[in-house]
Amino acid sequence: MTVNVGVIGVGMIGKDHIRRLTTVLAGAAVVAVTDVNLDEAKKVADGIGATVYSTGQELIVDDAVDAVLVTSWGPTHEEYVLAAIAAGKPVFCEKPLATSQEACLRIIDAEVAFGRRLVQVGYMRRYDRSYRALKAVVDSGEIGAPLIMHCTHRNPSVPSHYTKDMAITDTAVHEIDMVRWMFGEEIVGTTVLFPRKSKNGGELQDPLILLLEMEGGAIIDVEVSVNIRYGYDIRGEVVGEDGTAALGESSPVTIRKNNQFSGRVPEDWRERFIAAYDVEFQEWIDGVRDGGTYGPSSWDGYAAAVVSDAAVESIKGGARTSVKMGEKPDLYK
Amino acid sequence: MTVNVGVIGVGMIGKDHIRRLTTVLAGAAVVAVTDVNLDEAKKVADGIGATVYSTGQELIVDDAVDAVLVTSWGPTHEEYVLAAIAAGKPVFCEKPLATSQEACLRIIDAEVAFGRRLVQVGYMRRYDRSYRALKAVVDSGEIGAPLIMHCTHRNPSVPSHYTKDMAITDTAVHEIDMVRWMFGEEIVGTTVLFPRKSKNGGELQDPLILLLEMEGGAIIDVEVSVNIRYGYDIRGEVVGEDGTAALGESSPVTIRKNNQFSGRVPEDWRERFIAAYDVEFQEWIDGVRDGGTYGPSSWDGYAAAVVSDAAVESIKGGARTSVKMGEKPDLYK
Amino acid sequence: MTVNVGVIGVGMIGKDHIRRLTTVLAGAAVVAVTDVNLDEAKKVADGIGATVYSTGQELIVDDAVDAVLVTSWGPTHEEYVLAAIAAGKPVFCEKPLATSQEACLRIIDAEVAFGRRLVQVGYMRRYDRSYRALKAVVDSGEIGAPLIMHCTHRNPSVPSHYTKDMAITDTAVHEIDMVRWMFGEEIVGTTVLFPRKSKNGGELQDPLILLLEMEGGAIIDVEVSVNIRYGYDIRGEVVGEDGTAALGESSPVTIRKNNQFSGRVPEDWRERFIAAYDVEFQEWIDGVRDGGTYGPSSWDGYAAAVVSDAAVESIKGGARTSVKMGEKPDLYK
Amino acid sequence: MTVNVGVIGVGMIGKDHIRRLTTVLAGAAVVAVTDVNLDEAKKVADGIGATVYSTGQELIVDDAVDAVLVTSWGPTHEEYVLAAIAAGKPVFCEKPLATSQEACLRIIDAEVAFGRRLVQVGYMRRYDRSYRALKAVVDSGEIGAPLIMHCTHRNPSVPSHYTKDMAITDTAVHEIDMVRWMFGEEIVGTTVLFPRKSKNGGELQDPLILLLEMEGGAIIDVEVSVNIRYGYDIRGEVVGEDGTAALGESSPVTIRKNNQFSGRVPEDWRERFIAAYDVEFQEWIDGVRDGGTYGPSSWDGYAAAVVSDAAVESIKGGARTSVKMGEKPDLYK
Repeated sequence: MTVNVGVIGVGMIGKDHIRRLTTVLAGAAVVAVTDVNLDEAKKVADGIGATVYSTGQELIVDDAVDAVLVTSWGPTHEEYVLAAIAAGKPVFCEKPLATSQEACLRIIDAEVAFGRRLVQVGYMRRYDRSYRALKAVVDSGEIGAPLIMHCTHRNPSVPSHYTKDMAITDTAVHEIDMVRWMFGEEIVGTTVLFPRKSKNGGELQDPLILLLEMEGGAIIDVEVSVNIRYGYDIRGEVVGEDGTAALGESSPVTIRKNNQFSGRVPEDWRERFIAAYDVEFQEWIDGVRDGGTYGPSSWDGYAAAVVSDAAVESIKGGARTSVKMGEKPDLYK
Repeated sequence: MTVNVGVIGVGMIGKDHIRRLTTVLAGAAVVAVTDVNLDEAKKVADGIGATVYSTGQELIVDDAVDAVLVTSWGPTHEEYVLAAIAAGKPVFCEKPLATSQEACLRIIDAEVAFGRRLVQVGYMRRYDRSYRALKAVVDSGEIGAPLIMHCTHRNPSVPSHYTKDMAITDTAVHEIDMVRWMFGEEIVGTTVLFPRKSKNGGELQDPLILLLEMEGGAIIDVEVSVNIRYGYDIRGEVVGEDGTAALGESSPVTIRKNNQFSGRVPEDWRERFIAAYDVEFQEWIDGVRDGGTYGPSSWDGYAAAVVSDAAVESIKGGARTSVKMGEKPDLYK
Repeated sequence: MTVNVGVIGVGMIGKDHIRRLTTVLAGAAVVAVTDVNLDEAKKVADGIGATVYSTGQELIVDDAVDAVLVTSWGPTHEEYVLAAIAAGKPVFCEKPLATSQEACLRIIDAEVAFGRRLVQVGYMRRYDRSYRALKAVVDSGEIGAPLIMHCTHRNPSVPSHYTKDMAITDTAVHEIDMVRWMFGEEIVGTTVLFPRKSKNGGELQDPLILLLEMEGGAIIDVEVSVNIRYGYDIRGEVVGEDGTAALGESSPVTIRKNNQFSGRVPEDWRERFIAAYDVEFQEWIDGVRDGGTYGPSSWDGYAAAVVSDAAVESIKGGARTSVKMGEKPDLYK
Repeated sequence: MTVNVGVIGVGMIGKDHIRRLTTVLAGAAVVAVTDVNLDEAKKVADGIGATVYSTGQELIVDDAVDAVLVTSWGPTHEEYVLAAIAAGKPVFCEKPLATSQEACLRIIDAEVAFGRRLVQVGYMRRYDRSYRALKAVVDSGEIGAPLIMHCTHRNPSVPSHYTKDMAITDTAVHEIDMVRWMFGEEIVGTTVLFPRKSKNGGELQDPLILLLEMEGGAIIDVEVSVNIRYGYDIRGEVVGEDGTAALGESSPVTIRKNNQFSGRVPEDWRERFIAAYDVEFQEWIDGVRDGGTYGPSSWDGYAAAVVSDAAVESIKGGARTSVKMGEKPDLYK
């Protein structure tokens, strides 16, 4: 009953997921590995007793591989996901699903043609305990219909290769997926506001405020601050008609010292979301074993791409951008 | 050394301030009272041993009156404030200073001509312990330069005469004054966003989000929700370059019951700001006695009017409105 | 309608209350002053236009004095309070009421003989917003019958003249009065536990844990730590049959910096209880003006003395000590 | 590299651990099962493809079993643990290690004779994220030397077979183990205080307060309330010389409704400690695979028994009881 996974791409994230699949979670084994850097792939494979393949395509079609994990460079995602669909194998693709709307649509077409969901995209917030509890409160009707959501996405710093657009495509894209899931509806418009720049951000427009309009009229504001030094701080409050619900502040310890009581803000996304990644993969493994795939779909990957494109357009144009999305195939309803 | 105050207008707010001046604070006496409803004025005067005047003008010029408190209907504020200036007497005017920018400018002109500050406008948030502590943190530089401020202004409900514009002129006007004071600079632009309407708000556009742009580039977002049922909830978080500071959540008691730990949200503005009103008036009395007036000025009253007008325009037009303010006289620098 | 107060003792606390009565609260004037140090008394009197008296006895009997405030050295309290009773004047006596149980009983006898309450003792926690809210929750029955109360009384440091017994007589005596009021019943037994000593406390037994047994069987534990450096921290949680209620943690601001979110712990008792002192004296003034005295009574002062004596005995003997209290006169029921 | 586990006892806890080993954690398989109720054992074994054994002794000696998990009835623990030691196999024994001090000593003697640690006892608090963070703060010296610890252990209710002694042996025993670990030293004395009884506890002495004295002089107070209705609430605050550190309050969501902001208190021990159980077993599996056993030892099981016996004696006698512990063998240092 073990799910045998083949991993394409053994960079930092690939290695972390391999560690997860082999030493943390139940029911999976990593039996096959490949990477554009074959030496690195060999090293990783040796450590866990897996087979090395020269290419992702070979790995995908091998009968020893039950399911595929794509953690390679973004521009290569499309071909591996399409190959996995062609082979009829479940595939977990780290975000982004593909680097263009068109590529996402090709994946959707292939999956629809196959007739059954095989693809899951790595939006892990849906697996976070706090976000799940927040959604449960919203769905329960306890705070009335949701009208607004306030979000903050703060990073202590970003690497030097971080570009202007990445505030959307790399950072706010998590909120883009999250609110679609939280509200159960699509985003129809984006606007970006440009506050005074932080000295910590150099040439970047940092922070910025992303406004998202939901199909049903709710408005989401997302503060994106990626050089705020003090910690990795993800917050969200849904404002309903009769009350509000927010992600809790969950420090393991409260310290009283120096005229303060204080709790901990996580240092980085690993500290904040490590448990969510574990849940995400355990549910994926369990789903694959039981014959299904239930997490964020190709459609979710496509929708994130379309909204991100609109928001990037908003950055450039400085105005509201309408989100133009295709028709959603029945497979994803 | 007692400051003898004459009160114009003994409606709900006038009565509350008379109670404050006579039974809570040190150093003041209410010696004169008038109201458009003279019978009511007489009743109030009898209770505290004050003299009744037929008109505000008579009250203002009487030598027994050291300082004037204007708590009458908004459209009458201008004439009483001008009369107080003409009489050379300190005057505390509840917001708004006057009902038009032009009227505010006439007051400014008169005060400038008089050559010394006499007028204080009733923006009491500047006297709230939490807002003061927040401003102290911002001014200390501890969180770096302020770039964004997130505000929420929530009311459980509003009376039936509450109109669309009052979301700005009655509600968000408090944040308009507060952020000018918090950031020490003017507001240069306003935009209003319209989320899906709450069922609790009837015909009103409720909630709405007001965006304010500061001179120095900071952006303020203000959620205005005036029928949110659950309580009166005023929050604010200043986002700086290196950290953030927010109004604390100050419940007197934490209760653990029914699988919850919980604290209290105030029921209404009285519960939330009663201490701030006390401080506001104590400082005004002390200032009058010592020969000065230090609180929110005519200029602050004017600026609030100009920004409110722009925001109301934003509601109507649905677009960004530039705030066009006159030159600030030296008296207010 | 102004209450004219005569103040006996113008040390640090006397001066602070004079400031309060003259510049903070409504309805009072300080018209008479005396002190063992007459020069100091003159200086204070000059500043506020009051008369200086050579002795407390002279001050008390002067017709210009409506009510007496005793803030002199503890051992002198008894004679001044007795003189005020003899003069039939309301008297506010800072804690302790007197320095022995017998002295307290003499005051009670005098007051009972006079036939009406005149004495109020300065236990100000009963006027603190949080303690009042806590008592309201307990009294409401919301958490069921109270069974336990956990208290902490932490000081950053104590002066060099602070002795072993003062952990009870100066520090925990506040909790002793507070729990009698909170539970509405007497304390019947005391025990003191001696944890490992703090290096910060030198020769003192610091911290210690005081256990109090209530008439009805509830147990109170009080941690007394008077050199804990980090701040002045007063906490309390009442454990009921169905839930608990605790003093809230009320920081004006929450700061997010250096991987922490943090709020403020007060620096000292002034910061923590300044508002409670204001309420205490406003209610006393209002009561005196309206002909009554309602706060902590001579009986409360006596009971605190009896329990403190038992607890000091527990420190010496290291064992449980029974609290032996006299019969409560009807005047205090 | 899979650790093949044999499970003795498939009651509620046994089943839960089997679920954990087979569907949550990496690196283990349950290959053998037995129970006093063989039918039940067969049902469980069928579900996971394990072999059923008639007795624990047979299971332990079978070569297919790498490590043993004892989750049978307490009185049977000793013989299974001794058999596992005799077989030289790592054994995880749910608490208690054995039902008497003497039995614990027999296990210690056997393990010492074997010459290497094989036994781990199921005290899972040491694996809880909050307790670990708390210990890290204490160990860092950040709050100075620890002098006091305040603990609360609250259950919403207990089953009808819960007896007076179980307040210690079943409930407070968790704190007994935890503080030995937190302070890194032994407990030398116990006292039990009896507050007024809760109506919810029927004949039970509920709540009670357990006082523990540490070797180094620190004092621990533990409130044990097992019918408090409102939730399962485990708290702890270590008081150091210069500050304090407490378990955080970690609600996934904060809700604002009905004049309250509120967070969740767990419903039961499963909700509160499920993650700790997972960590406990993952570390045990990893340790067994790598040839070691690192968690709570036979000595810890013995010490918990000795302290529990003293505390039960304190309940009966109502007085302080000295804890008399044997010499600690080198194996456990």
